[in-house]
Amino acid sequence: MKVKLGKIPLVYPIPIVLAGADVQGRPNFATLGDCGIMGLNPPLVYISLHRDHHTTQGVEEHQTFSVNVPPTSLLAVTDYCGMVSGQEVDKSGLFEVFYGELGTAPMIAECRVNLECQVVKAFGIQQRRVYVGQVVQTYVEEAYVVEQDGRQGIKPMTALDPIIYGLDNRYYRIGEMIGIGYHEGKGYQQADEA
Amino acid sequence: MKVKLGKIPLVYPIPIVLAGADVQGRPNFATLGDCGIMGLNPPLVYISLHRDHHTTQGVEEHQTFSVNVPPTSLLAVTDYCGMVSGQEVDKSGLFEVFYGELGTAPMIAECRVNLECQVVKAFGIQQRRVYVGQVVQTYVEEAYVVEQDGRQGIKPMTALDPIIYGLDNRYYRIGEMIGIGYHEGKGYQQADEA
Repeated sequence: MKVKLGKIPLVYPIPIVLAGADVQGRPNFATLGDCGIMGLNPPLVYISLHRDHHTTQGVEEHQTFSVNVPPTSLLAVTDYCGMVSGQEVDKSGLFEVFYGELGTAPMIAECRVNLECQVVKAFGIQQRRVYVGQVVQTYVEEAYVVEQDGRQGIKPMTALDPIIYGLDNRYYRIGEMIGIGYHEGKGYQQADEA
Repeated sequence: MKVKLGKIPLVYPIPIVLAGADVQGRPNFATLGDCGIMGLNPPLVYISLHRDHHTTQGVEEHQTFSVNVPPTSLLAVTDYCGMVSGQEVDKSGLFEVFYGELGTAPMIAECRVNLECQVVKAFGIQQRRVYVGQVVQTYVEEAYVVEQDGRQGIKPMTALDPIIYGLDNRYYRIGEMIGIGYHEGKGYQQADEA
């Protein structure tokens, strides 16, 4: 029996990221869950920002942004970056900041993974600006890089320890590994062919 | 010390959902992680599909789709729906299907949460079609609905037990609750004002 709860964008769980942009010559970071993957080759990710957000100014100006994935040890400062606007608080001193090849997408050294992005599409919808960025470089903290099949990959999600958000306004950590992609469904396939 | 891993869209963790559409008169479901929130009022979500996907045909035809969030108990069939195309396999019998007010967005009864969506924006990028959908109704299985502050809400993510995916091609379950939104950062705010 289903209950109608009205109009809620109940996609869950969602990643918590810190979107970075240079605004008026200073690095600024906004906490958001409106971020995801749009393509793989070349890789595309999006962020959705309120058009009046401080961060939005910087992305508009430089057409670049970063996506920084904080571990749970950064929960307090990550939540803080979602509570206050860069219009009122200078967030540039909260983190150790570095830049990559684009030069205008500030990234957070304390985050284990950083994506440096060039805007390839932008549009307005409602009071939002949505930016689709092509990843020009992916930075991973050395301790989380592993050799896999002769090339460099990343440690499991449980080691990366990201912050997960639900629309219940709670933060969660990731739980145990439960399966492998394109493998768990093989039983169904065989039953289908029998 | 950061290592450059090249161009990887390493946003994580990502939700695993089953996107539903009626294709050639039959319900079809595609497993994807390229799904997220784009706006809140009214609620907007997106899905990104390969332009040649079977599901894409149905969304193009009806300009509607559903987002169904499977619990971990549906891992095998969810993985299976990502392994085979509706062009070759009829997926309409895998689930108990129901429809809502739009009439053309098939939803999965076994999923605890279903979003019924009307396309409000669509665009092509690379080999993808991206559909932004406005949620016209959110369906939640009765056992997961709770009363909160005099209105209906949902149980915690740990009860909903969604499937989480990482770009390590592993599935995970959700872990423990670690904090409350717009609350964990208060210590930073007070330190700032002191």
